[in-house]
Amino acid sequence: MGKFDTLMITQPVWWYNTYKKRESVQLTHLDEKDRPKMVDVSDKEESFRVAIASGTITMSQVAYDMIVSQQTKKGPVLQTAIIAAIMGTKKTSDLIPMCHPLMLTSVNCDVEELPSLPGFKLRVTAKLKGQTGVEMEALMGVSIGLLTIYDMSKAIDKSMIIDDIKLESKSGGKSGNYTRALT
Amino acid sequence: MGKFDTLMITQPVWWYNTYKKRESVQLTHLDEKDRPKMVDVSDKEESFRVAIASGTITMSQVAYDMIVSQQTKKGPVLQTAIIAAIMGTKKTSDLIPMCHPLMLTSVNCDVEELPSLPGFKLRVTAKLKGQTGVEMEALMGVSIGLLTIYDMSKAIDKSMIIDDIKLESKSGGKSGNYTRALT
Amino acid sequence: MGKFDTLMITQPVWWYNTYKKRESVQLTHLDEKDRPKMVDVSDKEESFRVAIASGTITMSQVAYDMIVSQQTKKGPVLQTAIIAAIMGTKKTSDLIPMCHPLMLTSVNCDVEELPSLPGFKLRVTAKLKGQTGVEMEALMGVSIGLLTIYDMSKAIDKSMIIDDIKLESKSGGKSGNYTRALT
Amino acid sequence: MGKFDTLMITQPVWWYNTYKKRESVQLTHLDEKDRPKMVDVSDKEESFRVAIASGTITMSQVAYDMIVSQQTKKGPVLQTAIIAAIMGTKKTSDLIPMCHPLMLTSVNCDVEELPSLPGFKLRVTAKLKGQTGVEMEALMGVSIGLLTIYDMSKAIDKSMIIDDIKLESKSGGKSGNYTRALT
Amino acid sequence: MGKFDTLMITQPVWWYNTYKKRESVQLTHLDEKDRPKMVDVSDKEESFRVAIASGTITMSQVAYDMIVSQQTKKGPVLQTAIIAAIMGTKKTSDLIPMCHPLMLTSVNCDVEELPSLPGFKLRVTAKLKGQTGVEMEALMGVSIGLLTIYDMSKAIDKSMIIDDIKLESKSGGKSGNYTRALT
Amino acid sequence: MGKFDTLMITQPVWWYNTYKKRESVQLTHLDEKDRPKMVDVSDKEESFRVAIASGTITMSQVAYDMIVSQQTKKGPVLQTAIIAAIMGTKKTSDLIPMCHPLMLTSVNCDVEELPSLPGFKLRVTAKLKGQTGVEMEALMGVSIGLLTIYDMSKAIDKSMIIDDIKLESKSGGKSGNYTRALT
Repeated sequence: MGKFDTLMITQPVWWYNTYKKRESVQLTHLDEKDRPKMVDVSDKEESFRVAIASGTITMSQVAYDMIVSQQTKKGPVLQTAIIAAIMGTKKTSDLIPMCHPLMLTSVNCDVEELPSLPGFKLRVTAKLKGQTGVEMEALMGVSIGLLTIYDMSKAIDKSMIIDDIKLESKSGGKSGNYTRALT
Repeated sequence: MGKFDTLMITQPVWWYNTYKKRESVQLTHLDEKDRPKMVDVSDKEESFRVAIASGTITMSQVAYDMIVSQQTKKGPVLQTAIIAAIMGTKKTSDLIPMCHPLMLTSVNCDVEELPSLPGFKLRVTAKLKGQTGVEMEALMGVSIGLLTIYDMSKAIDKSMIIDDIKLESKSGGKSGNYTRALT
Repeated sequence: MGKFDTLMITQPVWWYNTYKKRESVQLTHLDEKDRPKMVDVSDKEESFRVAIASGTITMSQVAYDMIVSQQTKKGPVLQTAIIAAIMGTKKTSDLIPMCHPLMLTSVNCDVEELPSLPGFKLRVTAKLKGQTGVEMEALMGVSIGLLTIYDMSKAIDKSMIIDDIKLESKSGGKSGNYTRALT
Repeated sequence: MGKFDTLMITQPVWWYNTYKKRESVQLTHLDEKDRPKMVDVSDKEESFRVAIASGTITMSQVAYDMIVSQQTKKGPVLQTAIIAAIMGTKKTSDLIPMCHPLMLTSVNCDVEELPSLPGFKLRVTAKLKGQTGVEMEALMGVSIGLLTIYDMSKAIDKSMIIDDIKLESKSGGKSGNYTRALT
Repeated sequence: MGKFDTLMITQPVWWYNTYKKRESVQLTHLDEKDRPKMVDVSDKEESFRVAIASGTITMSQVAYDMIVSQQTKKGPVLQTAIIAAIMGTKKTSDLIPMCHPLMLTSVNCDVEELPSLPGFKLRVTAKLKGQTGVEMEALMGVSIGLLTIYDMSKAIDKSMIIDDIKLESKSGGKSGNYTRALT
Repeated sequence: MGKFDTLMITQPVWWYNTYKKRESVQLTHLDEKDRPKMVDVSDKEESFRVAIASGTITMSQVAYDMIVSQQTKKGPVLQTAIIAAIMGTKKTSDLIPMCHPLMLTSVNCDVEELPSLPGFKLRVTAKLKGQTGVEMEALMGVSIGLLTIYDMSKAIDKSMIIDDIKLESKSGGKSGNYTRALT
């Protein structure tokens, strides 16, 4: 799994400049007494927003082969994971305490076979026209989808690892576009 | 992040022996037509079960420092993550399609500061006396807790990565005890 | 129960013409790889939408009389069904995997006594100003309401049948108005 | 659809005898003031319980062909319906006001193609060891599964009808076994 | 806020004695690092438990008269409140972060007219055979029921006050029985 | 119940005038047959809305001291209550039968120590741009937050009382602004 060798936490340049300009950076979900709050987005403009997130699950060859061979028939493990991922995005504000409820206009979920891991990569795209972003919805979908693969295969392999859950890109909103730097 | 260098997907010996003995391994969540089902545990004995899962989030130094400095005051980001993790375990059967509903008797969640990442490690322990295991509950708690840290810090750093979500150990049930092999 | 004798699945004329014009009809909830997705409604205009759905429950005379006689006092079975129907509409996107979350602006539920069945007919009207229709919400309300009547009367009659759940009409949205043809 | 011609609401003989013996039959979900309540099952013995319910959806030939042809590839409409049905059973006590929360030990869902309707029949089997029955869970699964087929095909055919949702059989519990009389 | 003048927080005698014996009282929902946790009840015996809670809503004469006059017909405001109260008890572990999920065996809800307030008193009784008590479920039912009365009457009177939500009594469990002292 | 002696239900003047002008006041959540319905807000203008609600919990000195002393370290009881209150606001339309689903744009929750009770006062502010008000969301947040304090302290004191849950003020919407009269 050498794919992590060159991993760097990358901060886009625009962000760093913004950061230096402000005298003190605040965690937006805390009030002046350091109490958690749901950030006030009442005055934000509605904009069209898209977020793409991804993550992987790594497993034994036996488990991988079993899922893939099922897939050539009807693919129920991966199908179930896709459905769980899509349904999971809709539960985000139930699960993440400070997330705003919002109305997704589109969600899809793609699965990529990674025989070299062996394992699978899930990618969820979520869209919305609204006052707040859909990053968390995309990340939630990825997490729930990967956990579903784990659940349905855990009788074969309990040692599977879920890895590399991250935001690929997002667009829309005041903070502008973000695309993860290549590593 | 050299910690992944030596990562191996490890299968405990007892498992491999079991596996070779069976003529055909089946994914337990699929019926004979490869349709997903909730595994029938009606005939299983109730046993006392414990599962421990963990995972990490890696972030920029700026984000890490901000969370830790809050923590020295009141730690609301990590506190919120712990609460979200515990509440998340209770939603597992809502989110994972083939999971049985079950009645957790104990959940707790521990956070470890990892200044060298920099980032945090979450560990969730779930307990139950019942007919089916609590692995998914522990893994769900870890995932929701880490996503909550992401949510509350994403205004500072969108490039955070959630990694290494895995089952540490489980006990109870017919398949016996499992402890992840050291790597 | 001769009421089904003349039942025909009717397709309004506009639909058939539309259908013939398209080269290939697609199930909108599947992507090009036949994977389920939540249909992208991001570019749809908001419009005012109304959907009306109905369904019936048929039961023994004993069960019917018992519910109706209660109703002349306080009607708790039917009242409970109405409340369950209204609450059920609000859970639609939780339960139907590819349904968009949406914000109903009005729901009501009417019950009609059908002594000749004997049984009851539930009719739910749901309204919304939004990018996607409320047919599923109206149908969900009808289903949950009828199941509630079943639940509260099943100690008297386990053989009740829920029947004829259908969309009566819908208006608003790009696909225009629809009214079920009389049969 | 002549299949309904001979349908009769049948009451098993044991029930009628029981009924005549009691001086007054009560709707068990109402208290002495006719207020709804959750029936007290505290003193009931735990027993092993199984319930089987079924229902059908009737649609146009076009819609039927499209779903079936998808099925020969990957069957995502029916797969999604199965998953929704199983997940729906777990939400029963959330949706049906007087239902007890309970812990299902097994759920599965079968789909039968009915080319002569044309349409599909869903059958859900739910199991439990507990103090109260799983009839409502099985009926809920059927309803949610059929609504999911409606949802995923409604762009093709809005006139589909959900019909014949009923309890096939149940076993366990003080009221004994029940099998629907053939019609 | 002189209305609390005669209110006394009463602690039953057995409790005070127990308290003095222990060297340090701990909040059971915090671990040794003061982090919230779900209390471990794994080793507790199952026992039969009952909890009764109550609370009141005080309102204008106009609002009271309107609800009561409706009640003489069909009582939909109070009926809706009763149903909401019962359904609310089932959501307790979803809403109260450290509450264990549990399986209620009985819930009922009674409403008392208090013309001298004017207003209403709700009383919820919850039962369970399990390892942990049902006090929170009873209190949750009371709260949700009273909020429902508020919701359905707020167009008439926004100044209603919900008061005096308290545990009346509980039985079962290691801590024994508790009955509120008269004040 | 003399504690209500000095309490007055206050109705702002504008309301009383409005009331007298109408020939008959209707409970808006009931239809012409006195059946509950979700009020139709389809034709209402969107407006910016704010609601503030509050409530108190009164407890023994022992319980109060324990919570406050924890607070000087990390305050997990009150932090947990704040988080539960915020999460609770998001569940309002799930719990209150006739409440519209809506999308909160801001929620925060403040806790005030009241050593003279002794106890705590919770105040929740909810905001929204929409067609219907957020009073119920603010009241729900207060109720859930106070119940969470009860839950986490009930091992110390079962006799705590939740009191004085009320709307402090609301703005926006056709019915205009409302501020509770001082008593």
